[in-house]
Amino acid sequence: MRQAADLLSFRTAGRGLYEITREVDAWVRRQGMQTGLLTLFCRHTSASLLIQENAAPEVRTDIEAFFERLAPEDPALYAHDDEGPDDMPAHLRAALTNTQLSIPLIGGRLALGTWQGVYLFEHRRSTPQREIVLHLVGE
Amino acid sequence: MRQAADLLSFRTAGRGLYEITREVDAWVRRQGMQTGLLTLFCRHTSASLLIQENAAPEVRTDIEAFFERLAPEDPALYAHDDEGPDDMPAHLRAALTNTQLSIPLIGGRLALGTWQGVYLFEHRRSTPQREIVLHLVGE
Amino acid sequence: MRQAADLLSFRTAGRGLYEITREVDAWVRRQGMQTGLLTLFCRHTSASLLIQENAAPEVRTDIEAFFERLAPEDPALYAHDDEGPDDMPAHLRAALTNTQLSIPLIGGRLALGTWQGVYLFEHRRSTPQREIVLHLVGE
Repeated sequence: MRQAADLLSFRTAGRGLYEITREVDAWVRRQGMQTGLLTLFCRHTSASLLIQENAAPEVRTDIEAFFERLAPEDPALYAHDDEGPDDMPAHLRAALTNTQLSIPLIGGRLALGTWQGVYLFEHRRSTPQREIVLHLVGE
Repeated sequence: MRQAADLLSFRTAGRGLYEITREVDAWVRRQGMQTGLLTLFCRHTSASLLIQENAAPEVRTDIEAFFERLAPEDPALYAHDDEGPDDMPAHLRAALTNTQLSIPLIGGRLALGTWQGVYLFEHRRSTPQREIVLHLVGE
Repeated sequence: MRQAADLLSFRTAGRGLYEITREVDAWVRRQGMQTGLLTLFCRHTSASLLIQENAAPEVRTDIEAFFERLAPEDPALYAHDDEGPDDMPAHLRAALTNTQLSIPLIGGRLALGTWQGVYLFEHRRSTPQREIVLHLVGE
């Protein structure tokens, strides 16, 4: 057994779900393993990870709208606003989704279901660079 | 160190929490390892995984009712309804819980707490077959 | 490749976020690995794990207040109240956050972002002892 680790960078353009399945899959294939466990780790507290349907685009916009209702931009609700009104809702939406995701590798392929895609969920209005750590253990 | 991977199938009968601890535990024991890391991965976006109390049954019905209030079946809220009114709430309830869970293995046993059970959380009204990938690395 | 596993105990003093980054980091360093995958597993269903900002303290109080609004202490909402009015909200807040978290280890250090801290999220009013299982695989 062996392992590999790396850092992928993504530039987002405002709030929303960005599919990163292709980039992640390409990195995994380059490691040349057949069986293993891939872990994705988001190095931020105002962006997160989500596995969701990659077919109907309305699913993504409905998910985005749901989290905007659940943790709204409303300064009256929060004490923390150092970085603007979208900062605290961003932390909450990240807390409700995932900082980390692991996906088994079987037969040389990620064991995602037919309709599953891996998404970087950006919660800030600005366009920061985001870092995702990848770690793969297997053989 | 070595690893094992497999696919478990479950047929659900409508929405709710289905305990799968026994099936998962039986698979782990068959691998004959003492120490390791088990990962469960749900290959669906309208069902999910949850570790919760396995003692009082009201905890499960209260959890189910909570997620039904939090992400209600209300066509006015969602653009996506290709597969019926329970489809979009199913994606949201899955997004709020877990597609993946990892549990350490110590002394030949899963390190679950006394009251913890592993549940498949079905969010659809229909009765689909659900696939959970298991991956174990250890020795 | 090799692995290590252990149990850390924490005594909490009521609801809230308790940073455990230092204790976790110290344990990881003692294992003397350069690259690997650390997994934290919370052996309880009324406490959970969260990675969040460790700079502004208002982020933590805003997170605590948000989850208190989202899953309120309101006996009218729940059937389960065997252990008091804070018990069922505790299960729900745990279900919405994480029972397990994995963090890659790179260059001998946890790959946390600059502002990320690891927190034990206590959801009960009482002051129980909490057990977190640590598992590290790497070399």
